[in-house]
Amino acid sequence: MSITKQNKINYPGGTKVKVSKLPTNYSNRGMALEDDINLTNNYYIDNDIAYIYKKPTPIKITKVDYPSRQKAVIKEAFFTTPSTTDYNGIYKGKYIDFEAKETNSKSSFSLANIHKHQIKHLENIYRHGGISFLIIRFNKLNKTYLLKAEDLISFLENEKRKSIPLDFFEKYGIIIEEKYNPRLDYLKIIDFLYGGSYGK
Amino acid sequence: MSITKQNKINYPGGTKVKVSKLPTNYSNRGMALEDDINLTNNYYIDNDIAYIYKKPTPIKITKVDYPSRQKAVIKEAFFTTPSTTDYNGIYKGKYIDFEAKETNSKSSFSLANIHKHQIKHLENIYRHGGISFLIIRFNKLNKTYLLKAEDLISFLENEKRKSIPLDFFEKYGIIIEEKYNPRLDYLKIIDFLYGGSYGK
Repeated sequence: MSITKQNKINYPGGTKVKVSKLPTNYSNRGMALEDDINLTNNYYIDNDIAYIYKKPTPIKITKVDYPSRQKAVIKEAFFTTPSTTDYNGIYKGKYIDFEAKETNSKSSFSLANIHKHQIKHLENIYRHGGISFLIIRFNKLNKTYLLKAEDLISFLENEKRKSIPLDFFEKYGIIIEEKYNPRLDYLKIIDFLYGGSYGK
Repeated sequence: MSITKQNKINYPGGTKVKVSKLPTNYSNRGMALEDDINLTNNYYIDNDIAYIYKKPTPIKITKVDYPSRQKAVIKEAFFTTPSTTDYNGIYKGKYIDFEAKETNSKSSFSLANIHKHQIKHLENIYRHGGISFLIIRFNKLNKTYLLKAEDLISFLENEKRKSIPLDFFEKYGIIIEEKYNPRLDYLKIIDFLYGGSYGK
């Protein structure tokens, strides 16, 4: 992957280093989709199209060392459950909010991959006039779908199943084509879904 | 302060504990204003008025231990510079974005307290149709101002000063009164500033 602006960090000692990403193995979250979305968001930012960012990973800090005033080092911390979704921002004056997940299943997306309060969050955003959705990649099918929060909620209201079958995505989702740049042009789908009504 | 929903965390071991907030001493950021804003945002959420959240503190994780699959412990991490502002969310369909800072000065707010890319971010949000602003508290005057991004940008374009004098806030800012609940009803100011044009 390319090195993104957000990944340039200043170590407390003052040495500027570039890091490509966080260690990948502490989470089940796939990094490939995340990389594609981050690259896409950088494209949107660089071209002044939209300002959508990934939120930092929420952690609970329990121990910090201060070798000097400018050099705080976190010595113990734990990953915590996120209150909201990973991505939010603004596009054409509208509030955009989504969660992105990958699955290795070929037939369905397990709802165990999304916290209940994240689904509630997507619903809240939708009710308040924002645009909220899921981006779900079926790794083994090489397909990435955008599914509107409205359709997710409709599924949950009408089904008792603990996973969303692929055919639901085929029927209600929209495939996001992979391209060179931007990698995953999901805002094109947003334009399509919401027509000109959300344009300026 | 009250314990907020966001502060309920699950320790990796599975024991549910409540923590009131992060350690306060690793940052110059005042916690009193932050507490007031968090309480206010919780009030908005509980009353289904707006969904505005504080972003997690961005950190760079360099070492993680895995005593078991479910018990990742971060053993080394560093605070990094945020790419955006601390708070964003949705209100009446509009994208809301702001940064909040305290100062102990009685006469001005030093711009050294805000990163340049955060100011650029506020400007980007404004240009794209969002509502962006600063909330600045003068601790020793017991006054909290909301200053629109437009006015901040206008100041920066017309002044060479490295701090914004109090009289600029008095002229262009609006005082946010402190109340019992919600503590700092900044959305009332937003309603006042943007009239009915942003309402649904």
